[in-house]
Amino acid sequence: MIKEIKSKQNELIKEIVKLSTSAKRKETKTFKVDGFHMFEMAKSSGLLKEVFVLKEIPNLDVPQYLVSEEIMEKISSSKSPQGIVSICKMKEEKEVSSPRVLYLDGVSDPGNLGTILRTAVAFGFLDVVLSENCCSIYNEKVLQASQGAIFILNIVHKNNLEELKKNGYKIFATEIKGSISLKDTPKIDKFVLVLGNEAHGVSEPILKLADKRIRIDINDIESLNVAIAGAIAMYELAK
Amino acid sequence: MIKEIKSKQNELIKEIVKLSTSAKRKETKTFKVDGFHMFEMAKSSGLLKEVFVLKEIPNLDVPQYLVSEEIMEKISSSKSPQGIVSICKMKEEKEVSSPRVLYLDGVSDPGNLGTILRTAVAFGFLDVVLSENCCSIYNEKVLQASQGAIFILNIVHKNNLEELKKNGYKIFATEIKGSISLKDTPKIDKFVLVLGNEAHGVSEPILKLADKRIRIDINDIESLNVAIAGAIAMYELAK
Repeated sequence: MIKEIKSKQNELIKEIVKLSTSAKRKETKTFKVDGFHMFEMAKSSGLLKEVFVLKEIPNLDVPQYLVSEEIMEKISSSKSPQGIVSICKMKEEKEVSSPRVLYLDGVSDPGNLGTILRTAVAFGFLDVVLSENCCSIYNEKVLQASQGAIFILNIVHKNNLEELKKNGYKIFATEIKGSISLKDTPKIDKFVLVLGNEAHGVSEPILKLADKRIRIDINDIESLNVAIAGAIAMYELAK
Repeated sequence: MIKEIKSKQNELIKEIVKLSTSAKRKETKTFKVDGFHMFEMAKSSGLLKEVFVLKEIPNLDVPQYLVSEEIMEKISSSKSPQGIVSICKMKEEKEVSSPRVLYLDGVSDPGNLGTILRTAVAFGFLDVVLSENCCSIYNEKVLQASQGAIFILNIVHKNNLEELKKNGYKIFATEIKGSISLKDTPKIDKFVLVLGNEAHGVSEPILKLADKRIRIDINDIESLNVAIAGAIAMYELAK
């Protein structure tokens, strides 16, 4: 189905603009992504619902809405829109099944969260668990920084660390106090890597649950950015 | 010296506000940083020139200007100013002397550049060379993400790769084509790690100079963010 929309006042366009808000995303269980790369990833994942385009896309089996450049600028979250905005269904959350799990305990900066998700795919951490106080994965800055990782990962919102521990996962938390060096961390088949909040680190209840606390040895500066520390830990533990 | 400034129209305040622009920073060879952590680092580095504060700081041997909250908001680049803005002299560029050198070839995103500088300190890459088309290290987003790394590092703006090569440095460039895996990269005493532009990677002339091209092995996603790839490479090569 292809349909042309000419007016910025069109009701559907107004609804799409509102998808920039968390409330509208929750209500409709959909979110929007920008550009061709994200469109391709959304299509492959089976989550694509409909697209708004400047030019028709051949052989596409979801509804297409042809819009003007003016409307495209209105619905796009990018400063320089590529000419395609894709509306996607939110992914269903599955049970954790990957041997390497990433647990994010209050990661609040959208750029950090998106970058961490992108890196998680790269190192095969295909299940990601988010604590309640993380920022939303559907935030547009998160989606941008994640480079479509969200379409590949199983991301769950559920504090199931105790359950994972019972199921044989070892819990590794990044924390300086009482820690062992990342380089000396035992290579284990089933584990959860926990990254903490930018300012406060991993929270106390989770530190108590952890089997090991791990640190990255660094010089002359207080700490690493959480996305950087997480990436180095994922790289090393996935070796 | 302590002096009170009461008017937002004060000429000095107007000058300080202008330090948000690159032109004014170049003209005056100064830059400003926000908050107490940056103040402490500026003081330790000997680059502190003067401070604008809400409350007097005892035992400080640079000029202090007491200002109102309204003026503080005007001169601070932070959304929630901590009550201190420090004016610093730009650092003199020294010759490269560290055995581990980082070369940034067109890193253009301020958040990436700042994060890379923070990580460089952590892994002992104490000389950083920037190509012409990198963003400015005095950009306020760079300073924020760098967490004061700029006060520790020797940062030089000079394409001296050929010279470094003649002086016995091996050149490692991050690039997929024709590469060896980071894990198989020989451990060498004197080397330069080159990171490229976010969209285009390392430029052709530098790839030609490189002794080795190195890649980080990843799954299911096209690439890593440059600050992430750089951090993993610095971590591994500094081991």
